[in-house]
Amino acid sequence: MDERLKKQLEFALEIDKEKNIFRQTSLSGHGRKENDAEHAWHMAVMAYLLREYSNEEVDMTKVLMTCLIHDIVEIDAGDTYAYDDTAKQSQKEREDAAKERIFSMLPEDQKAELTALFDDFEELRTPEARFVRAMDNLQPLLLNNSNNGDDWKEHGVTAAQVYRRQSETKLGSEKLFEVTDAILQENIRKGNI
Amino acid sequence: MDERLKKQLEFALEIDKEKNIFRQTSLSGHGRKENDAEHAWHMAVMAYLLREYSNEEVDMTKVLMTCLIHDIVEIDAGDTYAYDDTAKQSQKEREDAAKERIFSMLPEDQKAELTALFDDFEELRTPEARFVRAMDNLQPLLLNNSNNGDDWKEHGVTAAQVYRRQSETKLGSEKLFEVTDAILQENIRKGNI
Repeated sequence: MDERLKKQLEFALEIDKEKNIFRQTSLSGHGRKENDAEHAWHMAVMAYLLREYSNEEVDMTKVLMTCLIHDIVEIDAGDTYAYDDTAKQSQKEREDAAKERIFSMLPEDQKAELTALFDDFEELRTPEARFVRAMDNLQPLLLNNSNNGDDWKEHGVTAAQVYRRQSETKLGSEKLFEVTDAILQENIRKGNI
Repeated sequence: MDERLKKQLEFALEIDKEKNIFRQTSLSGHGRKENDAEHAWHMAVMAYLLREYSNEEVDMTKVLMTCLIHDIVEIDAGDTYAYDDTAKQSQKEREDAAKERIFSMLPEDQKAELTALFDDFEELRTPEARFVRAMDNLQPLLLNNSNNGDDWKEHGVTAAQVYRRQSETKLGSEKLFEVTDAILQENIRKGNI
């Protein structure tokens, strides 16, 4: 087998590990937490179906691939809970090292391509990145809302913290931020946050 | 919220259930079986990185979405093991009913779009469908090979059965079938199938 294909298949096997990185979001009505691979899959399907609500025109392949690969670095760096301010301080350093190790398994051109998608997403530099961020927020919000806000209650998250994070949804989709706002107001009313 | 967006979000929540549909393939070196959402995510990332080996030119968004949605019907119909000939007889009927119920949660245009992607995939009617079938075969093959063929051993699957299924990979990618063949020959040599 040639070197290029060998590297691609080794990378394909390596990312199997993403299925063992668990998040702080619970599946709907099911108790267990979801993992990064499930989250990425769910976000990608949602991005496709909700693309009409993006503020800007987006390249759908780029959107889907950003959804699919945005958490691969967590294979090494672990999941950083959105409301864990201590862990967030070291997050960039951990993720940069992970990005270098994991994406270097690929041929140079594909390493560059995935690194660019990841970096654009982190910095919200493109229309695609901004729309994917909206999905990264909305997907766990739908699950948590369906579970009566249990993930927020478990961690004692405040409404201000949730709004700080969820407000970035506006950058990708004004329309989906309206929905977000309605869901959050309902959860505040119920005392869930 | 308008009716269209409401339907889209209800569908988004419904498909969370795909994370609870477990397959007969084990994660690499990890013991537990993988679920349909993880499998779909893994296939999609692989399809993007291996697209240069498709026999025919493919529309990447269509490829990715086919990967992502091809098992949604299993939320109702359950996973049918590739080598369970009895279950395979009732598979189409179960999956048709599931397709109708689940995709009908979406607005009509999106129901039609996802139904077409699913049907094209089932019938291998498009270049994208054929390439996705290659991924649907190669992804579990990589995992099972990394586990020394344990999934085949557990079910007493024969080399002829594996070749019958894996031979469809040729329709999507001659190059990836060469890899498949090499992996299978190695597993036959080791007595795994």
